[in-house]
Parts: sequence; C-alpha cells; structure tokens
Amino acid sequence: MDESLSLRGAAFACKSNILQQGFKMCIQDLYDKDSNSQGFVNFGTSENKICFDLLHERLTRPDLNYLEPSLLEYNAPYGIKSLREAAAEFLSYYCQAPVPLNPDNIIILNGCNSIFCSLSASIFNPGDGFLIPTPYYNLIDEYTGAYTGARPIHVPLSSKVTETENYPFQLTIKKLEDAMEEGKKEGIPIKALILINPQNPLGEIYSKEFLVECLDFGQRHNLHVIIDEIYMLSVFNNATFTSVLSLHEVPDPEMTHFIWGLGKDFAMSGMRIGIFYTKNQHVLKSMSHLALFHQCPGPTQYVISRLLGDREWLENTFIPGNRQRLKESQLIMVHGLQDLGIPVLKSSAGLYVWADFRKFLTAQTLEAEMELWWRFLGEKLYIAPGKAFECYEPGWFRLTFSLPSDLLQAGLKKLKKLLKQETKTENCN
Amino acid sequence: MDESLSLRGAAFACKSNILQQGFKMCIQDLYDKDSNSQGFVNFGTSENKICFDLLHERLTRPDLNYLEPSLLEYNAPYGIKSLREAAAEFLSYYCQAPVPLNPDNIIILNGCNSIFCSLSASIFNPGDGFLIPTPYYNLIDEYTGAYTGARPIHVPLSSKVTETENYPFQLTIKKLEDAMEEGKKEGIPIKALILINPQNPLGEIYSKEFLVECLDFGQRHNLHVIIDEIYMLSVFNNATFTSVLSLHEVPDPEMTHFIWGLGKDFAMSGMRIGIFYTKNQHVLKSMSHLALFHQCPGPTQYVISRLLGDREWLENTFIPGNRQRLKESQLIMVHGLQDLGIPVLKSSAGLYVWADFRKFLTAQTLEAEMELWWRFLGEKLYIAPGKAFECYEPGWFRLTFSLPSDLLQAGLKKLKKLLKQETKTENCN
Repeated sequence: MDESLSLRGAAFACKSNILQQGFKMCIQDLYDKDSNSQGFVNFGTSENKICFDLLHERLTRPDLNYLEPSLLEYNAPYGIKSLREAAAEFLSYYCQAPVPLNPDNIIILNGCNSIFCSLSASIFNPGDGFLIPTPYYNLIDEYTGAYTGARPIHVPLSSKVTETENYPFQLTIKKLEDAMEEGKKEGIPIKALILINPQNPLGEIYSKEFLVECLDFGQRHNLHVIIDEIYMLSVFNNATFTSVLSLHEVPDPEMTHFIWGLGKDFAMSGMRIGIFYTKNQHVLKSMSHLALFHQCPGPTQYVISRLLGDREWLENTFIPGNRQRLKESQLIMVHGLQDLGIPVLKSSAGLYVWADFRKFLTAQTLEAEMELWWRFLGEKLYIAPGKAFECYEPGWFRLTFSLPSDLLQAGLKKLKKLLKQETKTENCN
Repeated sequence: MDESLSLRGAAFACKSNILQQGFKMCIQDLYDKDSNSQGFVNFGTSENKICFDLLHERLTRPDLNYLEPSLLEYNAPYGIKSLREAAAEFLSYYCQAPVPLNPDNIIILNGCNSIFCSLSASIFNPGDGFLIPTPYYNLIDEYTGAYTGARPIHVPLSSKVTETENYPFQLTIKKLEDAMEEGKKEGIPIKALILINPQNPLGEIYSKEFLVECLDFGQRHNLHVIIDEIYMLSVFNNATFTSVLSLHEVPDPEMTHFIWGLGKDFAMSGMRIGIFYTKNQHVLKSMSHLALFHQCPGPTQYVISRLLGDREWLENTFIPGNRQRLKESQLIMVHGLQDLGIPVLKSSAGLYVWADFRKFLTAQTLEAEMELWWRFLGEKLYIAPGKAFECYEPGWFRLTFSLPSDLLQAGLKKLKKLLKQETKTENCN
C-alpha cells in the first residue's frame, strides 16, 4: 500500500473482481475472425452484440444528429425532463403499468451501477445488510458497497430438486426467512431485499405470484425491495414476464424500487443509461442530490429520449429483431453445449445460459472451479465462473450467447478442444 | 426525516447549496427575450453561453455522426484509449508540457465533480481536511465530502491591501502556513491543498513563481496538491497563464494532481467530461476502480476525442472566437457595473467578475448580504453571493458575463432598477 492513499483508496487500488479480471484480459487481445483469430473469445461478459446493425441505422439517422443550447448547458443532474417523460411513457407501456408512471418519480443516471450506488448511500448506513439470492451478479456488492459500506446477506440456492423446491436454484420465501433470521442472529441490520428479474445468471423469470410473495415478505420485515429488471425485454420464446410496475397494488409502495437500463435490452452497455423509479419522495430527494456524480451528457439524453419514444421502430424493428436473434443465438449455444455433454438450465430470458460443468472438475470445490476457469483462459476462452456469482455449488458457469455466430462457433470450438483434452487427461489418470 | 433513509441519505435529502438553489429557481422560469421577458436572468451560474453557434456547426458535421460497435460496448470505465490519447496530446500542447503527457496517466470521468469525488475517496479518510483559500466555489465541499467525508480548512483572504498583501484577496504562503498550523492545532489531519487556477470566483491567475512556492509548501507538509485548471483556456487580454503541467520539475510529482474539463473552456457544462492527470500510480488505480460510477458514454467520448484533436478548428475558430467574445462580454459587464458605481476586481480570466456590493448592504454582515441576494431574486435576477464562496467579507458577489448581450443588458437593467430603489430607500431613512 502506498501511504499517499486513504485506507479505502488502498483497498480500491487492489480490488479486482473475477468478472472485471476476465473482461480486462479479453479486451487486450480480442478475437477477430479476420485480424486476430487466435485472440480471446469473451463468453464471460453479459453483453448483447447482435444488434449493432439495427442500432447503427437508427442512431445515425439525421433526426438524432441534433443539438440545441440547453443540451450543452447545466441541467437537472437526475435527467432532463424530456428524457424522464419519454422513460415514463416507455416503461408505462412495456411494463404494463396500470396507471401511467409519473416522470417526477424517475431518476436517470449514467448506468444501473450508479443507480445502485446512490440508492445504497441513500438507504444503507455503513454495515447495513441486504438480502440477495445466490448465485447473483456479484458486482452488485461493489455497486452497493464501494462508496457506501453496505454488505450482502446471501440467500444460497441449490441445484438439488426436493419436495419443496421444484426446480434447480429455486428461490422460496422460506429461504428468505431463514437468511433474515440468520442475519439478525449475527446482529446485522438488514434493510433491503434485492431481486434481479429476469435473474442473472439463472435466466429465471419470477412468476407474478412469487413476486407478490416477495413484496409481502419485504413488508413483513420493513425492507426496501429493490427489483432490478435490466433484462426485462431480453425475454423470448413467448415467455411471460411480470414487471413489478405492472402490479395494481404493491404491499408497500414507498419501499418498492425499480431499476432498469439500456445496457442489456438495448444492446448498449457503452451508452451508460440507468433508470430508476420509486414513489418514495425522500429516496428521490437524496438520489437527486447524489446525481451530481452520475450525470449523463445532454446530447446522449436527447438521443435516448428519441429512441425510447420511437414506438414504430421499437415495435417493428428493434424489439422483434432482437428477440428473434436472442432466440437463435441461445439455441446455438444450448445445442453446442449439449453436444459437449454440458447440461444447461432451461431459460427464456437474459443474454446467457447457466451451465453445469461439474463433471469436468477434478474435485467438487471452488478451487477446482477456478482451476478449470484458468484452463479455459489458457485457451483464450473467457467464461464466467460460479464464484463470480457467489454460487455455493462449485462447477457452474455462465456463458453469454448474444454474440455474432462466428464468435459463438469459435468459442464452442475452443470449448470442445479443451474439454476433449480434459476427458483425455481424465482417462489417463 | 423519513426513517426509510440512512443517516447520510436523510442529510442528502435536505441539502441545498446556495448556488444550486439559485440555479433551480432560474431554470423553472428562465428569461427569454421573446417568450419570457419577465423571467429570471441568471448571472449566478458560471457558464459560457456565447459559443453555441461555433459548437453547433462543428458538432453536427458528418464526421461526428459516427458509430462503431466498440462505442456501444463495455469499455475501460476510466476512458477509451483514443480519448485518453487525444486528451494527452491536447493538454501537452495547450498546457505547454515540456515532455508529452502519457495517456496512461489520464483518467476521464463524467465531469470534474466526479474527479473530485473519486480522487477524494482515494486520498482522504473520513474527517481528513484539505486547505483551500476562500473565497472559492464551495460546491467543492460537496464534491469532496458527499461520498467521502473530507472537510475544507479555509485559508481566508481579505480585500484589504497591506504591506505584505499587494492586491485584494491575495493568497500568500504565510496564509497557507497559518491555516496549516491552525488545522493541526485542532487535530485535523490535513492531507491536501486545493488550488483553482485561474481562480473561481476571483479570476486571478497565479504567477509561475507563486505556483512553485505553493508546490514547495505542499511538499514541506507532505500534502497532495490538487490544481483545478478548469478555466485555463478562458484567459483573455493576452494574459499569461502557467499550467502546473508546464513546469519542468515539480517538487513532488507523485503528490501533484491536475484537473481540467470541457464544461467551462469548451462551453459545454452539459457534456460532462472531466479529465484528470497524475503520475501517482496508486491514485490512478484507485480512481480507475471508482470510475465504475462515473463513466461517460462511448459515443460522447468519440466526439470529444475528435474535437480535442481538431487543431485546425481549435486554433482558427473556437479558441480565438471564444477569447474575443469573452473579452467583449467582460467589458460590457465591467462597464455596466462601473456605471452603477460597483467596483470590480480586475481580472483577465474566468467567465465572471468579482464585484463589491458592500455599499448596498444595510449592515456589513452575511445576513445583510443574503438579504440583498433575496432582494435581487425578488426582481428575478440571480447573482452569486460571497456566502456561496465562503467569503469572510460580506458584500461581494460573483457575476457571470459569458452570456448573449441581450441577457447581459436585461440583467444590468434589472440591477440598475433595483439599486436605484435601494438608494432611494437609503435616502428616505
């Protein structure tokens, strides 16, 4: 540690999350079928790379090459009015809100991580806990913890199917109650429940009934219930998704908060747009203040307001096009993995599948999982290990399928080569 | 306070800085010569509104209406390579760096406030102090304090000219030493000196010699020296400005940090681009991690990289055009104020003048200053009171001049009307 840093600065300087580590390795030596066919294939980052042509066509149309003075000037840091209005209308429609959303209840920041960060600072005292079912995208720990000091209380799920758990990694209210109990015993003030729906990495969509049960659970324990629906439009195969915003009544509206963004559903992680909705005016006030540090550029906000408002393009081009491509890409990945004897959790949402590599582990431990991960990396294939999702069962990996087919094939080829070696090694032992 | 919030959340929810308050009033009822001639004239916000035509012409050219996949994808959160390279080249040239700056020492975030925020979290433990001469733009307290808990140690300057202070509000090393001593006595760990150069609100440009003395002072006390040069190109009348990056040697390179952004010098506060340079690799690592929360959109970064790299446009159009307009606008403001008998601190930098309204105060107190401020607001004229700059002498105000001439005239007219009433009231008493 360098003594020019603060204590937390020294901690930040050393931090390296598995997902960030994998991503970093990839971008330094990225696979390209023409110029770098020996480079890294990135199956580890959850990113939609199959819609650029649709986006390019829309984003470079002359109507978006527009500027007015106010877009270059200071503005409300929590989002310009026209974008908050467009977002309210968009979410009212696509989340099927029973009553149109009020744009004044919306905050727009530079990404969902910033939403988590400023929301956390607003509701958590340092050391406060939040419940979260594992496996989950664990960079949320960083989003809620870095500036804020909140900590996750895991609700561990298991792949075992039992009498009370009808499918692998099923979340139940009993499990939430148990984790709540456990946390209380340890003296941790638990202030919130965070749910990702559709779930990341499982791809599970919570039923309407279960969603309501979760909200009831939250109310019973006076918890903020934060629903991150960042994959809500990345749903295919005609699966039914229920947004929390569609419910006619929620048990505790002041404690129910909604997060969405354009990173996944609009295939633009680089655009940095996160959208937050709540009826809690105190939370809105606090987050509006912190918005100072998480602002989006005026011109970007203009572009996004036009995009969200272009129902014709959304309905006829982007949304059906994206859904069709997701479906096709998922099939390629699932079949590819099945051909290699790798079981995959069934799902119809998200940009990834959750796959069972347990039989390729030398032992059923997290160490063996990481060993396998490093072996993949050695072949320049990055897939995301269960450890990055705080999965309690070793051997599960998340693989992103929303990639151009040449990339998908290249990655599957690497996997095949690797697992063949693996099987050979196994046979020799 | 609502109990759904954390302690700090409750504090954030109530926060309202004078400058934010004034700005908020203005944007709800803004003056427009055609549509709202009775609206607010904003002399209070430091914003350059005289270059929109130049920017519009450049920013809507076809070369900037460009998109490539990587711009919409995840990227290094501390700035894409091409922008960090363009920024390094730009700063090397305009700051007259003796050796070209290394792009790896640059971090790009969404605004200088985010730079202050993540830098502060990296170097300050909660409760640590930083020296800062007053008057100063006191939102810096929020930038350094909100997520971080650092606190300002004022170095109060005075308008009085004495044997050792040759001009009003002169900063001297003696004053820095005194404040350091005072802070130590109070048991505050002082970790940094923050300088704004050109100064805000004084418009003062520090001489090269004095800058070096400040750096020496910093080294003597093992302080981080943070130089915010956000107005470095808003210098006119052929005044000489010395950037800290131009120095051939600085006493402690690891503890010397540079901040600049496009908000002021490029007349685009709404674009949210802040640039940080340091040689301290530990600070860079910590800030790179926190960049997660302060990212700029890929397409915006592309646009800015092209803009910073367009030397032809910068040299022949934007920079001379902006300088000429700043000079002319400042003259209108200075003459307008002089006609009303309001003395103005002489300066050749910044977007504002620092003006002496002491004779219009009913008493030489901060209360009377705020009373006068509210009277201005009653006439829908917002100017920034000394209190917003932690000025220890009541009666000074900052007035922004980088505004279209109709706005300048409208504001001066309001001022005239108001001060006439003021004088009348005085005479009646």
